[in-house]
Amino acid sequence: MEAAARVIARRGVRGLRVEELAAEAGVSTALIYYHFKDRAGILRRTLEFINDRAAGYTTGRDPDAAPLGPRQELEQALLLELQDDELVRENSTAWGELRASAIFEPHLQEDLARATLIWVQEIAALLGRICPMATASGLTVAAERLTGLVEGLSMRWLSGILPLEHARELVLDAVDAELERLGQR
Amino acid sequence: MEAAARVIARRGVRGLRVEELAAEAGVSTALIYYHFKDRAGILRRTLEFINDRAAGYTTGRDPDAAPLGPRQELEQALLLELQDDELVRENSTAWGELRASAIFEPHLQEDLARATLIWVQEIAALLGRICPMATASGLTVAAERLTGLVEGLSMRWLSGILPLEHARELVLDAVDAELERLGQR
Repeated sequence: MEAAARVIARRGVRGLRVEELAAEAGVSTALIYYHFKDRAGILRRTLEFINDRAAGYTTGRDPDAAPLGPRQELEQALLLELQDDELVRENSTAWGELRASAIFEPHLQEDLARATLIWVQEIAALLGRICPMATASGLTVAAERLTGLVEGLSMRWLSGILPLEHARELVLDAVDAELERLGQR
Repeated sequence: MEAAARVIARRGVRGLRVEELAAEAGVSTALIYYHFKDRAGILRRTLEFINDRAAGYTTGRDPDAAPLGPRQELEQALLLELQDDELVRENSTAWGELRASAIFEPHLQEDLARATLIWVQEIAALLGRICPMATASGLTVAAERLTGLVEGLSMRWLSGILPLEHARELVLDAVDAELERLGQR
């Protein structure tokens, strides 16, 4: 799975060749087909792997430090995607390639939609801890906007057209705006 | 240029073959090289073409209708990227492919950054007409967030994981939030 994420980040989904993947993983192409059945299977499992890996991102924060408040936890969760870290870059690049390829590989759409929904729900839950009086639909649309913004800015950052620090500031400021909107600061 | 935009939207930048482009345009590969010099030239000029074409998007609104107020003009400018129109889909898909490829084709970064900056400045100018007392930096960051959000949601919509109408609602709501933030409604 690590090899698949690397190859997709490097070549895109359309440039993914099973021979290159096998060489990168140090196994035979037969083994790849045995495990994943076909190309669609490789893509689906790589998407899953990328999402699991993103869920495990850390900030390198001392685990013995005092627990974060809900606001800091929310900010940290959104900023995890905007870190100058090789793994984050590779993961986000591969995610962008998989998402873009869903235009041509419709079988990926359901998995992409589910992964996005889980992310939105996590952010909505964190927003709900800060704004307990907000409605569920208010929390969801705020989370959809924040995650959509992070995704848009992450693509600009990865493409070298937006400095990382500025992307992070824009996100923190959007958190401010959404919380204000939800009626609590 | 139209053929290049179509081929990039269909195959991605990495899948762009000059032979296919020549066939699509109905000309010889020699003519393509004569005009664009090399692959980098094709990409740069296609990016320019895509941006010019996006600047000409219309909503099909009656040109004799009463002029829009600044708020409606702002909303319309942002929603132009979220229209169920074949040309908008193709243009946005090609833009996404060119932006993603800038990770590997650094000569594109400057052109992408300039195109993004022009879009941000246009939106900041419209925001400024609604909120004349806001600071220039406040208008710019609001425009960066709104355009970043539109870009993120547009990618989700193109990938089939976000319904168009919902994407448009999220943008209109974000306009509300940013204007509230800028201190004027």
